[in-house]
Amino acid sequence: MPVCSLNELDTPALVVDLDLLEGNIRKMADFFAEREAKLRPHVKTHKCPEIALMQLRAGAKGITCAKLGEAEAMAARGVDDILVANQIVGRKKIERLLELLGKCNLAIAVDDPSNAQTISDMALSAGKSVDVLIEVDVGMGRCGAKPGKEALQLAKKIAQMKGINLRGLMGYEGHAVYIENYGERRSECLKALNALLGTKSLLEEDGFEVGVVSGGGTGTYDITGSYPGVTEVQAGSYATMDARYKKVVQEFDCALRVLTTVISCPAPGRAVVDAGMKSITTEFGLPVVKGVEGATVSRLSEEHGILKLEEGAKLCLEDKIELIPSHGCTTVNLHEKIFAVRGGVVESVWDVAARGKSA
Amino acid sequence: MPVCSLNELDTPALVVDLDLLEGNIRKMADFFAEREAKLRPHVKTHKCPEIALMQLRAGAKGITCAKLGEAEAMAARGVDDILVANQIVGRKKIERLLELLGKCNLAIAVDDPSNAQTISDMALSAGKSVDVLIEVDVGMGRCGAKPGKEALQLAKKIAQMKGINLRGLMGYEGHAVYIENYGERRSECLKALNALLGTKSLLEEDGFEVGVVSGGGTGTYDITGSYPGVTEVQAGSYATMDARYKKVVQEFDCALRVLTTVISCPAPGRAVVDAGMKSITTEFGLPVVKGVEGATVSRLSEEHGILKLEEGAKLCLEDKIELIPSHGCTTVNLHEKIFAVRGGVVESVWDVAARGKSA
Repeated sequence: MPVCSLNELDTPALVVDLDLLEGNIRKMADFFAEREAKLRPHVKTHKCPEIALMQLRAGAKGITCAKLGEAEAMAARGVDDILVANQIVGRKKIERLLELLGKCNLAIAVDDPSNAQTISDMALSAGKSVDVLIEVDVGMGRCGAKPGKEALQLAKKIAQMKGINLRGLMGYEGHAVYIENYGERRSECLKALNALLGTKSLLEEDGFEVGVVSGGGTGTYDITGSYPGVTEVQAGSYATMDARYKKVVQEFDCALRVLTTVISCPAPGRAVVDAGMKSITTEFGLPVVKGVEGATVSRLSEEHGILKLEEGAKLCLEDKIELIPSHGCTTVNLHEKIFAVRGGVVESVWDVAARGKSA
Repeated sequence: MPVCSLNELDTPALVVDLDLLEGNIRKMADFFAEREAKLRPHVKTHKCPEIALMQLRAGAKGITCAKLGEAEAMAARGVDDILVANQIVGRKKIERLLELLGKCNLAIAVDDPSNAQTISDMALSAGKSVDVLIEVDVGMGRCGAKPGKEALQLAKKIAQMKGINLRGLMGYEGHAVYIENYGERRSECLKALNALLGTKSLLEEDGFEVGVVSGGGTGTYDITGSYPGVTEVQAGSYATMDARYKKVVQEFDCALRVLTTVISCPAPGRAVVDAGMKSITTEFGLPVVKGVEGATVSRLSEEHGILKLEEGAKLCLEDKIELIPSHGCTTVNLHEKIFAVRGGVVESVWDVAARGKSA
């Protein structure tokens, strides 16, 4: 695509402001530059190899993925150190995992001995070995072995298996990352880290080597990233950001927007744009209108955004406006391309290569 | 893809039960078989040309699309009578509209004289003419001219323009379709239809020919479809259905599901599956677990579904279960393929060809 101006784009279009994106990546890289913990950014937010490679060039030690399909898409574009922070369950998935092992350095999470046994058996048959982290439930109530004895028991079982190497522990304090009050967020996060690092100590007392302790998100990067014994932090949303996370971590900027066109001005105080729930997700709230004083999104239907205009706010048919998503991770997943813009000019068009790769 | 059993599919996977899909299509076709109003099913729900062609073979007079991109995808697969029930605004979009005119019979909605003028000018330059319906806001508060005089004014302006042919009126009672109480739904729907058909009379008194009066959704198909003067009904969700619409129109069956795998059983009473908000949308509520007594979805994160199990409910690692989406239209939009299943066997794999075509 030849260089064009932002306003020439057909809409709706997913746009990232390059200056802000680069600034966010630099800021986070600077935070981790001199620390024990390193950054392993989660790419589930942007699903875009170009942004992952920018993060790696800025110093990240590797990337984190949520699904095998994401890891496959990233490995295909040259990313070579990947943690899939999730369980890989069932023969079909494990076959894909073993296939991917030849293409990049890879680790996955386990929380169940029978799953670990299946991975061990299949890896052994294939003449391969799989690096794993034990996922510990540090309070989120999703996956994960319980901290302490249950995790230790699992470690002991894995130690008996061949074709599977226990490299360390993983715990995600997802229940803490969005708490807006810093003191409360810190307090919840520290409880989670105590559980995770306490489990590390327990394993070490039993003779295990725990090389990796992985956790953290954008809302807790500074807390988890400073905690003794944590070796890597999985923050991801910081790069592109969204309106919800902006309430939690003000130091990063909302680089991600959906460009829309006003397609109807049917009544005073109302304008309708061409982006709805199929272009911007709403589970974390409505998107925020950028740069139009007095205009707010009052609701979205599937393909329309209905804007409320206060007196004095004026929008005309064909006007283009930008909406800042409340949840970047799921919004990006709706789009095939990201238009990278600087100073109103589209510099690059990137594939959202891992879009829809939930399998 | 060779024929395989449902349980061999890698997950998450979007699945449609063919018997139920065909039953829904037949039931709706039967309703419209002998009526003045004809069915013009909205394909924004399934975004799948194969399902659109099934609907046409069953007697539908054409299809409805929400966006030009959907219409392009459908026309490319042989659908030849399309209403884009939306405004087409801006030169880029109108160029695409004029390009598409050569490939199928097409009509669009207008609600603004300046937009109509731009379409007229561009059509004239291209030596083409565009069929339009005036969109009337029948109470939904989205797009549309006001019923009555405002719509008549617009009709008079369009009548002065060349390259644009006024074919009739369109109004969508989207504010009524989800009202669960039938009496209230009917009452709201009739108010909307009175406004729409009243506007028709006004135009006719002024000498306009109003050949098309288009409206309706799955929740109001029987009310709008029986109303004198309505010529076509845009119901779409009835074909695949979802958990929310099932509360409104019990006569259609939920044919759409997302197949998932249990990837973790970390604690008594909790199981975690591999489908989250990136596979099933939640704006209309959580998905419903199919066929597992005592199991309910308690929450979704992006790539996980957390299930609550009552005492006695048992799920094991690697078990496959189906979730019924609360909102089919946005859920389908997350997937690239639909696996069409009959009696536990995958008979066909269909492209969601209009997935993501929001531009």
